[in-house]
Amino acid sequence: MKWSELKHDPCPVARGLSVIGDRWTMLIIRECFRGVRRFDDFQRGLGITRHVLSDRLRKLEEEGVLRREQYQERPARWEYRLTDAGRALHQVMLSMVGWAQEWGPPRPEGPVFQVTDRDTGRPVRPVIVDAETGEPLDPRRLSIDFA
Amino acid sequence: MKWSELKHDPCPVARGLSVIGDRWTMLIIRECFRGVRRFDDFQRGLGITRHVLSDRLRKLEEEGVLRREQYQERPARWEYRLTDAGRALHQVMLSMVGWAQEWGPPRPEGPVFQVTDRDTGRPVRPVIVDAETGEPLDPRRLSIDFA
Repeated sequence: MKWSELKHDPCPVARGLSVIGDRWTMLIIRECFRGVRRFDDFQRGLGITRHVLSDRLRKLEEEGVLRREQYQERPARWEYRLTDAGRALHQVMLSMVGWAQEWGPPRPEGPVFQVTDRDTGRPVRPVIVDAETGEPLDPRRLSIDFA
Repeated sequence: MKWSELKHDPCPVARGLSVIGDRWTMLIIRECFRGVRRFDDFQRGLGITRHVLSDRLRKLEEEGVLRREQYQERPARWEYRLTDAGRALHQVMLSMVGWAQEWGPPRPEGPVFQVTDRDTGRPVRPVIVDAETGEPLDPRRLSIDFA
């Protein structure tokens, strides 16, 4: 299988990865959730080359995850904002946060990353549940495959 | 920033990606959840080169996501199984499934991918909630950053 074929794969894991499976892409999305909108700020925050960043932003726009909006006329300047599809990626990002905090490489010294409810100020602990029952999903009980 | 530095990043999104951010890795994990354990079966299922597969399996073992178990002595043959850390990746995979089914590239004709509860036989719809309140997380209400 070639990477470019994933987009047309019957499996949603594969189709999802065709959009956000690139190594830098999820970090760009994270920056969006932190409020970053402008090319130079993405570049500063991630320390990746302008070439790679510009390629990834263009792809995310094509995939409908980001939209471009002009904020200045002369010279023309653009901001990148999450679409509804992009904002819905919070679930993938937060499940990654949850996994890495419990199971990933050890946290280094330094600032602590937090997900907080703006309204209540309380830290949020994301967990994945069955939408019908509200029960946390137990992978041993799940059959994950084609019907 | 270099990719190899992500492992030591204060941000859990970055640390998570240092383990599963490689393009093929999450598909290998998906195969594990489908019950695949043996090298040749991974290779057949994914259609990637033996070289890439063997490199990714070795890394996942180093990261503690997979463990190797001998199932045959002569010649020596090994199986790859999810560790507890690996099984906990179900939340990342399922949030990807949920996103792709709602927002990703359109599903092609053909078989339908399903997540089903083995005990009840019912399809499962994964959703990410706040563990304390059970409320679905609204990204507009979340502050996602360093404390």
